[in-house]
Amino acid sequence: MQKDKISIPVIRRLPRYYRFLGDLLENGVNRISSHELADKMGVTASQIRQDLNCFGGFGQQGYGYPVEGLYQEIGRILGLNHQYNVILIGAGNLGKAVGAHMAFEKRGFRLIGIFDNDEEKIGQTIHGYTVMDAAALEAFFSDHTVETAILCVPRTAASELAERLYRLGVRSFWNFSHYDLAMRYSDVIVENVHLNDSLMILCYKISDHKDTQTLREK
Amino acid sequence: MQKDKISIPVIRRLPRYYRFLGDLLENGVNRISSHELADKMGVTASQIRQDLNCFGGFGQQGYGYPVEGLYQEIGRILGLNHQYNVILIGAGNLGKAVGAHMAFEKRGFRLIGIFDNDEEKIGQTIHGYTVMDAAALEAFFSDHTVETAILCVPRTAASELAERLYRLGVRSFWNFSHYDLAMRYSDVIVENVHLNDSLMILCYKISDHKDTQTLREK
Repeated sequence: MQKDKISIPVIRRLPRYYRFLGDLLENGVNRISSHELADKMGVTASQIRQDLNCFGGFGQQGYGYPVEGLYQEIGRILGLNHQYNVILIGAGNLGKAVGAHMAFEKRGFRLIGIFDNDEEKIGQTIHGYTVMDAAALEAFFSDHTVETAILCVPRTAASELAERLYRLGVRSFWNFSHYDLAMRYSDVIVENVHLNDSLMILCYKISDHKDTQTLREK
Repeated sequence: MQKDKISIPVIRRLPRYYRFLGDLLENGVNRISSHELADKMGVTASQIRQDLNCFGGFGQQGYGYPVEGLYQEIGRILGLNHQYNVILIGAGNLGKAVGAHMAFEKRGFRLIGIFDNDEEKIGQTIHGYTVMDAAALEAFFSDHTVETAILCVPRTAASELAERLYRLGVRSFWNFSHYDLAMRYSDVIVENVHLNDSLMILCYKISDHKDTQTLREK
């Protein structure tokens, strides 16, 4: 399998395939045709065949896709077999939600620490993790290898924190703050979660739909 | 301005322009060239010119873009001047984070109620909103017009809840649950936030980067 032949738009669609295939597995489905999968996912069968052909060897005309094999292969392409050490900074509501509800181990990561600088939050327990003092980050790094940091801090705190983590060697971030990390450091890997952007897109979809309705009603 | 001429990929990029232009405004910048904006956003100047030409009338050769005018126009296209009534269901950590930290009024929405079915959460206050009993949703709808629902509930609860809200007339959802609403109801507008997908993409980026490094080192 040659990763570099898979385009970014296809990669972006893989988590969705992975989720649907995982559901099928849970429901005891062993084989599925591109048409059935297309129906479930709301895309065309031809899109599915094109996407899944990118990493070849799956699906034979008339036999459909082996669900488990495809699920495993997509997981492998996404690198979910890894266990990258990750720390979470910011134990507010969002940090708590992320720390408590994400299945890190199934997504290629191992959560090894949660930090905050708020005295009220330090010492609290989130999903079995005791929130540590962010002032002790440097000491923590001398004992642990940390691959990735999750930033659940306000934008105002993100700049200084990112600088500290960068100096400590962190080069990949899951970024919930509104601070634009990638612009500041060219050699970091960043995946941003911009909830505001998502909300604005929802607003557009509603507004656009209403416009269309009004036009129809005229 | 003819909305239907703007393609979906351009629309998806508008919130990011909106954020950057908002920052420029806050910093007192009145005009910006496509090159300066491109540098800040990490895209090409030609991409910016192409995108912003879609809704015409902005930017003159050599004069740059008027920041405020462009900001307002993008907000208008996104429909942010609306105030769609929205309710939030699920007052767990994620619901609290969303309820307390999103600037709904600046994003086209007005949050008018937060609901949960957990007795411990009912009566709690989140950002000035008292969490109401989800059992009282029907009564609430008889007194209020609700455009949109935010689902911050577990996947297991989402199916029944979505059905209830659909019957009550809700046709747009900001969906944080992992339940695939759009597949169930063809006439609803859904914006999904799939944090799991984002985490998997981060894992891919890290894994892919390491592969590249290994190849280089060989």
